[in-house]
Amino acid sequence: MKLEQYFEQAEQYRDKMTACRRDLHKYPESGWREFRTTAKIIGILKEHKIPFRYGYEIINKDYVWSYPSEKELCAAADRAVAQGADPEIIKAMNGSTGACAVIETGKPGPVVALRVDIDCNDVGEDMSDSHLPAAEGFCSVNAGCTHACGHDGHATLGIYTCLLLNAMKEDLSGTIKIIFQPAEEGVRGAQSVAESGILDDVDIFLTSHLGMGWKTGQLVALSRDFLSTTKIDAVFHGVSSHAGMSPQDGRSAILAACAASLGMHTVCQDSRGASRINVGTFHGGTGRNVVADKAVLQIETRGETTEIERNVYHRAMESLEGAAKMFGCTVETEIKGSASSSNSDHELEPYIRAGAGRISEITEYIPESGFSGSEDATYLMAKVQSHGGKAAYMGLGANIAAPHHNGGFDFDESVLVTGVKLYASILWEILHK
Amino acid sequence: MKLEQYFEQAEQYRDKMTACRRDLHKYPESGWREFRTTAKIIGILKEHKIPFRYGYEIINKDYVWSYPSEKELCAAADRAVAQGADPEIIKAMNGSTGACAVIETGKPGPVVALRVDIDCNDVGEDMSDSHLPAAEGFCSVNAGCTHACGHDGHATLGIYTCLLLNAMKEDLSGTIKIIFQPAEEGVRGAQSVAESGILDDVDIFLTSHLGMGWKTGQLVALSRDFLSTTKIDAVFHGVSSHAGMSPQDGRSAILAACAASLGMHTVCQDSRGASRINVGTFHGGTGRNVVADKAVLQIETRGETTEIERNVYHRAMESLEGAAKMFGCTVETEIKGSASSSNSDHELEPYIRAGAGRISEITEYIPESGFSGSEDATYLMAKVQSHGGKAAYMGLGANIAAPHHNGGFDFDESVLVTGVKLYASILWEILHK
Amino acid sequence: MKLEQYFEQAEQYRDKMTACRRDLHKYPESGWREFRTTAKIIGILKEHKIPFRYGYEIINKDYVWSYPSEKELCAAADRAVAQGADPEIIKAMNGSTGACAVIETGKPGPVVALRVDIDCNDVGEDMSDSHLPAAEGFCSVNAGCTHACGHDGHATLGIYTCLLLNAMKEDLSGTIKIIFQPAEEGVRGAQSVAESGILDDVDIFLTSHLGMGWKTGQLVALSRDFLSTTKIDAVFHGVSSHAGMSPQDGRSAILAACAASLGMHTVCQDSRGASRINVGTFHGGTGRNVVADKAVLQIETRGETTEIERNVYHRAMESLEGAAKMFGCTVETEIKGSASSSNSDHELEPYIRAGAGRISEITEYIPESGFSGSEDATYLMAKVQSHGGKAAYMGLGANIAAPHHNGGFDFDESVLVTGVKLYASILWEILHK
Amino acid sequence: MKLEQYFEQAEQYRDKMTACRRDLHKYPESGWREFRTTAKIIGILKEHKIPFRYGYEIINKDYVWSYPSEKELCAAADRAVAQGADPEIIKAMNGSTGACAVIETGKPGPVVALRVDIDCNDVGEDMSDSHLPAAEGFCSVNAGCTHACGHDGHATLGIYTCLLLNAMKEDLSGTIKIIFQPAEEGVRGAQSVAESGILDDVDIFLTSHLGMGWKTGQLVALSRDFLSTTKIDAVFHGVSSHAGMSPQDGRSAILAACAASLGMHTVCQDSRGASRINVGTFHGGTGRNVVADKAVLQIETRGETTEIERNVYHRAMESLEGAAKMFGCTVETEIKGSASSSNSDHELEPYIRAGAGRISEITEYIPESGFSGSEDATYLMAKVQSHGGKAAYMGLGANIAAPHHNGGFDFDESVLVTGVKLYASILWEILHK
Repeated sequence: MKLEQYFEQAEQYRDKMTACRRDLHKYPESGWREFRTTAKIIGILKEHKIPFRYGYEIINKDYVWSYPSEKELCAAADRAVAQGADPEIIKAMNGSTGACAVIETGKPGPVVALRVDIDCNDVGEDMSDSHLPAAEGFCSVNAGCTHACGHDGHATLGIYTCLLLNAMKEDLSGTIKIIFQPAEEGVRGAQSVAESGILDDVDIFLTSHLGMGWKTGQLVALSRDFLSTTKIDAVFHGVSSHAGMSPQDGRSAILAACAASLGMHTVCQDSRGASRINVGTFHGGTGRNVVADKAVLQIETRGETTEIERNVYHRAMESLEGAAKMFGCTVETEIKGSASSSNSDHELEPYIRAGAGRISEITEYIPESGFSGSEDATYLMAKVQSHGGKAAYMGLGANIAAPHHNGGFDFDESVLVTGVKLYASILWEILHK
Repeated sequence: MKLEQYFEQAEQYRDKMTACRRDLHKYPESGWREFRTTAKIIGILKEHKIPFRYGYEIINKDYVWSYPSEKELCAAADRAVAQGADPEIIKAMNGSTGACAVIETGKPGPVVALRVDIDCNDVGEDMSDSHLPAAEGFCSVNAGCTHACGHDGHATLGIYTCLLLNAMKEDLSGTIKIIFQPAEEGVRGAQSVAESGILDDVDIFLTSHLGMGWKTGQLVALSRDFLSTTKIDAVFHGVSSHAGMSPQDGRSAILAACAASLGMHTVCQDSRGASRINVGTFHGGTGRNVVADKAVLQIETRGETTEIERNVYHRAMESLEGAAKMFGCTVETEIKGSASSSNSDHELEPYIRAGAGRISEITEYIPESGFSGSEDATYLMAKVQSHGGKAAYMGLGANIAAPHHNGGFDFDESVLVTGVKLYASILWEILHK
Repeated sequence: MKLEQYFEQAEQYRDKMTACRRDLHKYPESGWREFRTTAKIIGILKEHKIPFRYGYEIINKDYVWSYPSEKELCAAADRAVAQGADPEIIKAMNGSTGACAVIETGKPGPVVALRVDIDCNDVGEDMSDSHLPAAEGFCSVNAGCTHACGHDGHATLGIYTCLLLNAMKEDLSGTIKIIFQPAEEGVRGAQSVAESGILDDVDIFLTSHLGMGWKTGQLVALSRDFLSTTKIDAVFHGVSSHAGMSPQDGRSAILAACAASLGMHTVCQDSRGASRINVGTFHGGTGRNVVADKAVLQIETRGETTEIERNVYHRAMESLEGAAKMFGCTVETEIKGSASSSNSDHELEPYIRAGAGRISEITEYIPESGFSGSEDATYLMAKVQSHGGKAAYMGLGANIAAPHHNGGFDFDESVLVTGVKLYASILWEILHK
Repeated sequence: MKLEQYFEQAEQYRDKMTACRRDLHKYPESGWREFRTTAKIIGILKEHKIPFRYGYEIINKDYVWSYPSEKELCAAADRAVAQGADPEIIKAMNGSTGACAVIETGKPGPVVALRVDIDCNDVGEDMSDSHLPAAEGFCSVNAGCTHACGHDGHATLGIYTCLLLNAMKEDLSGTIKIIFQPAEEGVRGAQSVAESGILDDVDIFLTSHLGMGWKTGQLVALSRDFLSTTKIDAVFHGVSSHAGMSPQDGRSAILAACAASLGMHTVCQDSRGASRINVGTFHGGTGRNVVADKAVLQIETRGETTEIERNVYHRAMESLEGAAKMFGCTVETEIKGSASSSNSDHELEPYIRAGAGRISEITEYIPESGFSGSEDATYLMAKVQSHGGKAAYMGLGANIAAPHHNGGFDFDESVLVTGVKLYASILWEILHK
C-alpha cells in the first residue's frame, strides 16, 4: 500500500480523534493520576491487539517526583472508575499510570520511539460561552483540573498514530514504541520513564508539542535550547508568638522567607549563558496578630546549561539556609521536579523535512528554533543520546485561543489528523524498506 | 432586699448560665454575623420585658470596619435561622447585630454602662477528647469558627447580669445600660458603637475580660496601657509573565511584598514607648513558573500611645509604597480595624474594691495591671471619658485550658456566676441609695 | 576650717581651671592614647604630693576593648612628648593611660570613689569664629580629635576636686579615690578599671556628666535607666570578580552586609522594655565594576536590661552569620566596647540633696531622671553595688553651644568651679565628723 | 619605498617606544587630567610638523561625563608642568586634554581614523620587586594613579604609528586621523569625541586593545558583543539622629541603600540577552551610634543590547527611588559614564587579515571573538557606522603580569613595535595605490 492510502486512512480518523480529544478534555487528570486516561488508551490498544507495557515496567519509582500519597492515588483511581474507566484495567494498573505500545514489524531495523504526554494542568477552566469547550459541552468536570496545554490532543495523537502505524506494519521494518508518559506538567514524570529501561534499545526518539506559539500550518523540525530546570518547595519553620504581647518570643518564618526570596533573585548573572530563578508562590502565616511560624515557597531554577542551572540551584540553597539562620528559623527543601537542558539532533532533520514535505497541511517548514522553556522530554532525549541514539523535538503549529496554562486555552483540532500523517510520513521515511 | 439575697439568686443562675454559654459555644458567629447570638439575647430580654435598642440605633455604619457584603450578611442570617434563631427577631434586626438593654430604675442617678462582646474567632476548634467542649458535645458546628476568646462567656455574663440587675431595680437608682457589642475580634466593632450616641449620657463605663492570664479567684480592677493599634490589609499588584520565557516582562508582586515586609519590621525603635508591627500573613503568586502578579499582606501596627502608633503606621505606609515602586508594582491598602490606647480611671477603683470585697470567690484583688495587648473597648472608654465620665476595664480571673485564640481554648465556667455577682456588687456600691 | 572657706578656695581655682581645661582642649587625645593628659594629671598630683596609682594597677588588660596596637600607642606617646608632656612620666607610664589619686585621711571611715573620664571624640573641630575655642585660640591641634563631649572639663574637675579634697583632709574621715578613667567614648575603658581591683574596697561611688541637656544651674542627683550596650564591628569577606565578565565567580560582600543590616534592624520588638540596634557605618567594595570582596559594618546593640540587650545581640549575630551564608560569604565579628544597664542608688540621694543645697549656683535640684543613653560608668557602679556599696551618677547642668559629639560643642566653663564645690559639699556631708 | 622598509623603520623605534611608554607609566594621569601626556604627544607632533587639532575642537563639552571641577583641572595642569610638561603647550591646551593628528596624503582616497586612549586607572601601583616597573624604576610617582590597563602602551603606539604613517605619506592616498582620546576608564570620554565633528568624514575606523586575555602573537581582527553600560552614582540622604536616645527621629540612609542594593540585583533576568548590574562600592554613615544621614553607591548597569541595558537602568532607578521612599529618605543619581553596545564590521576583516599576514610576530590570527566587557570606543564606532562607515576593534595579544586594573599589571613591551607594524600594514592594504 502506498503512503497516500495511509493518509486517507488518517483522514477517516478525524471525527473519532475529535471525539476522543473532547472526552479526555472533559475528564482531565493531574500528573500521576491519569487513571481514566491510561485505561482508555489501554482499552483501545487491547481492542486492536497492539502489545503494550505499563505500570512499573515503564516507571522507575526511584525517579518519580512529587508522587502522590497512596490515599490520593486510590481516590484518583476511584474517580476514574466513577467516570467510566474499565474497573478491571484500573485494577491491573495497580496504582501506576502511563503505558507504552510496542509495534514489532518482524523485520530487522531500527527501534524508533514516539512519545506523547497525557496529564492536565492544575487550573480551573474558563466557563464562558466564548470558550469552545464550554460552548460545546466538553468542559472539565474535575474542579481545578483543565487540559490547558493540549495534552488531551497529544494523547489522542498518540493513540491514532499508534493505530495507523500498526496498520502500516507490513510496509515498515524495525520496531516502534509509542510512549504515553504521565506527569509532564511540573517536569515530574520523564526521568522515571528514562530510567525504566524502556529506552535502552531505542535508536531514534521523536516527540512534539502542539501550539507553543506556532500557527496552524507551521512545523518546527528541531527545537533546541531547552533550559535545564529544578522545581523546589521550601518550607520555613519559625516560632509562633503573640505579636503584641511577646514579639521577642517569636521567630517569623515570613521574614525569613522574604529575605530568602530577595536573596535568591540576585543570583542570575552568568556570563556563560541564560539563567533564571522564580519564587512563584509564597504562603505564610496564620493570623494578623501572630508571628508566623510557617511559610512555604514554590521555586524554580533554570539554566542554559546544566552547569549554569546547578550554580543557580546551589546559590538558591545557600540563600534559603542562610535566610533561615538569619531569623532564627529552619528550612526544609524538597525537589518537586527537574529537567535537563537538551538539543535536537541535526541528523534527524532530513527525515522530518522529507516527511513534512508530503503533508499539504504543513505550509511552512522551519528547520530549527529555540524553545526558551523547560520540558522533561529532555530526559528521554538525553537517555537515547547517551547510548548514541538520535532525538528530535518538533513544534507542531496549531492556532490557540489563549496562552498555554490559561483556563481559556483551546487549540485548532485540525492539528490532530495533520499530526498523525506527519508521524506516519516521517516513519515511512525512516523505516520503509 | 439585701445584696446577699441577690447573690443567692445569682447562684440559682448557675446551671442556666452553663447551658447558655455552651449553646453559644456550639453556634459561634464571627464579627458582624452574630445573628443567632443577638436573637437569643433579644429573645431573653423580651421574655423578661427588659427594654432594649438594637440595629442602627447602636451601630453607626460610618465607623464599621471590615464589614461583610450584603450577601455574606444574608447567608449568616439564614444560617442563624437554620440553627434555631427566631425568624421574626432575625427579620426585625434587618441585617445588623448587637443590642443594648436599658434598665431604668425610675429614680434619679448616674447612667452606668456595662459592655460585653459576643463574637467568635476565625479558627477551627480542637476536636480531641481532652478538649472539654469536644468531650461534652458542645464543640463548634460552624467550620472555622470557634469561641476561643471566651466571648461566649461574656455574652452569657451580660445576659444574666442584666436579668439580676433588672431584678434589683427597686434597690437601685439611675439608669443601667448593658451593651452587647459585635465584632470585637479584629477590633472592628466598638468605634461604631461609640459613635452611635448610645454612650453620650453615660457617666460610668465598666467592662471586663475573663482569663487573660489571670487565674480563677483573681480580679484586676483597673487594666491600663492598652496599645493603640491599626489593622491593615495591603494588596500588591505586579505584572504576570512566564518566568522562563520572558522574565523581563514580569514585575513580581511577591518581591515587592517581601521588601515591604522586611522594611516595615525595621521601624519599631522609639524612645517614647513600646511599638509593634507584624506582617502576620503573606499570600502571593499563582504558580511556580509565573512571575507573581498579586501578593496580599495582613499587617498590624501598635503603639504605647496613639502618637507612637501613628508613627509606625506612617512608616509602614511609606515602606509599602516605596517597595511597590522599587519593583514596578502598585499597592492598595485598606484599614480593617483600629483601637486607641487607653487607661482605666482611678476614681472607679474604690467601687470595684468594695464590690469585690463582698465576693468570697474573689481571693486575690489586684488594684491595677498592664494589659499589653489591644482591645476596641478603648473606643468606648475614650468616648465616655471625653465628656467627663469615668471608665474601668477589669480582668476577671479564670483558669484556661489553652491560650486565647487557640483552638483548644476553654475556661473555668465558675467565673460566670462570680462575674454576675461582681457586677451586681459594684453597681450596688454605685447606685444603691 | 569651715566648708565655706573651702568654697572660697575653690573660687580661687577658677582661672587655673579655665586654663587647664583649655590646654586639655587644645591637645585632645583619643581613648587609650591619653598620654599627655595623664602625664599632666600625674605631674600635678606629684607636685601636691598626692599619692596615686596608674598603669596596670588600675587597668586589667583582659577587659580592654578596641585597644590600639603597640605601634599606635608609641606614636601617641611620642606625640604627647612633642606636645610638652614630661618624658620621664611618659616613660614611667609604660604605655598605659589613666590614674587614680588616693587621699587617705588617716581616720576610719568609708571609702568613697569619684570618677572622671579624660578621652576625646574622633571628630574634627569647628574652626569658625563663632566657635569659642576657635575665637580664643584653644582649638584642637590634633586633626580628627576634639573634646566634643566635655571630658576636658571632667578631667579638670577631677584634678581640682582632688586638690581641694586633699586640702580638706583634716576635716574628713575615711579614704577618697579620684579615678581618671581612659577610653569612655565607645564604652571601652571602664570594664578594665572595674576589674583592676581598685574598686574592691569602695563603699560609695560618685560620678557625673556635664551638659547632657541640663542647663547651667540644674542638677540631677540620680540618673537611671542606662541602656546596656555592645559595640560590634563586622567584616564580611566575599569573592572579588569582574562584574561584567564573570559575575558568576563573585560573591558580593556588599549584598551580604545589606541583607544583614536590614535583618538586624527587625529585632527590636520586646515587651520587656526598650531595645535598640544601629548599623551606624557601612563601607564596602573597591570599585564600581568589581564584585565587592569586603564590607565592614559598625554596629551597636542596646537594651533596657542586660537580658534584653543580650537577646538583641544574639539575634544580630544570627543575622550576620545567616546573611553571610546567604551570599556565599563569611563574616568575622569583634566586640569593640560594652556597657551594662545600671541605676543609681536612692540611698545616696539625701547626701547629694544636702550637698547641693549649700551651692548657690545650683538653682534647680532634680532628684532623679532617665539617662536614655549608654555610659561605661555603669560597669564601675555595678562593681561597687556587687559588694553592697552604693553608687550615683549625677547630671551637672551646663549650657552648651552644640550637641554632644558635634564639632561645634562647647560648654559654660562656670560649671567647673560649681562642680568642685559640689563634690566637696557632698563629701563633707558623707565624711565630715 | 616598500612596506618592508617601513617595517625596518618601525624596528628602529623599539628603544624609543619603550622609553616613551615607561615615561608615561611613571607619570600616569586620570581621565580628563592627561595634561602631561597630551603635552608630550603634541610636542612630538610639533617636532615632526604633523598637523593636529586639540582642545574643544575634538571634545564636545555637552557630552563629557564625570568632568572635574575647574580647580581640579588647574591642579592637574600644574602638576603636569611640575613633572616636566612644556608650560606653553599646557597653556595653549586651555584646560582640555586629548588631541587628533591629521595626516593628509594630498591624494584622493578614504578617510581612515585610528584611535588610542591615554588615561590611567585610579589604583595604587604594586611596589614589590617582582613588579617590573618597580624593579626598573618607572613606577607611578602619582599616588593612587597607575597605568594598569596598558593605555601608556596605547598612547606610545599612537605616537609612533603616527610618525611612521607620516613617513609613509608618499606611498598612501586619502587622509589619516590618529585620535588620542582622554578618559576611557569609566567610559567617560568617547561620546564627547564622537559628538565633536572629528569623525563626521571618517570612512574607516580602527582601534585596538592590548592584552585582554590574548597572548603575545595572537591577534583578534573583529571584537564583537561589547556590552552597553551606564555608570551611576547614587547618594541617599536620610535624617541623622542619636541611635540610642531618639531612634524614631532618624531615617537611615544606610538601610535605604541596602534595600536598593538588594532590589537592584534582582533585575538581571532577560530572555533577550545578557544583562548585568553591580553595586561596586557602598559608603555610608558617620558613626556607630548615629542614624546614618548619607550613603553613597557606585553602580553600573550593562546589557547585550542597548534596549536590554536601558531596561536594567530603568529598573535600577525604580529600585533606588522606591527604596529611598521606603525609609523616608531621598536619593540623587548622577550618570558618571556610558558606552553603547557595538560590533565590528565584517567588511574590514579582509584588510586586517592581509595586513596581519605580513607581520611575522603575529603567529595566531583569530577572525572574531566576543569582548564580554564595555568600552567607550563603541560610541566612536557607532558614529562612523551611522553615516555608512565601517569600524573594527582589534585585540592585540600581549602577555600580561597581572589582570587589567590590578596594581601589578604590566605587559610584554614587544607588542609596541608589533602594533606599529600592524597598523602600517593594514593601512597599506587600504590606502596604498
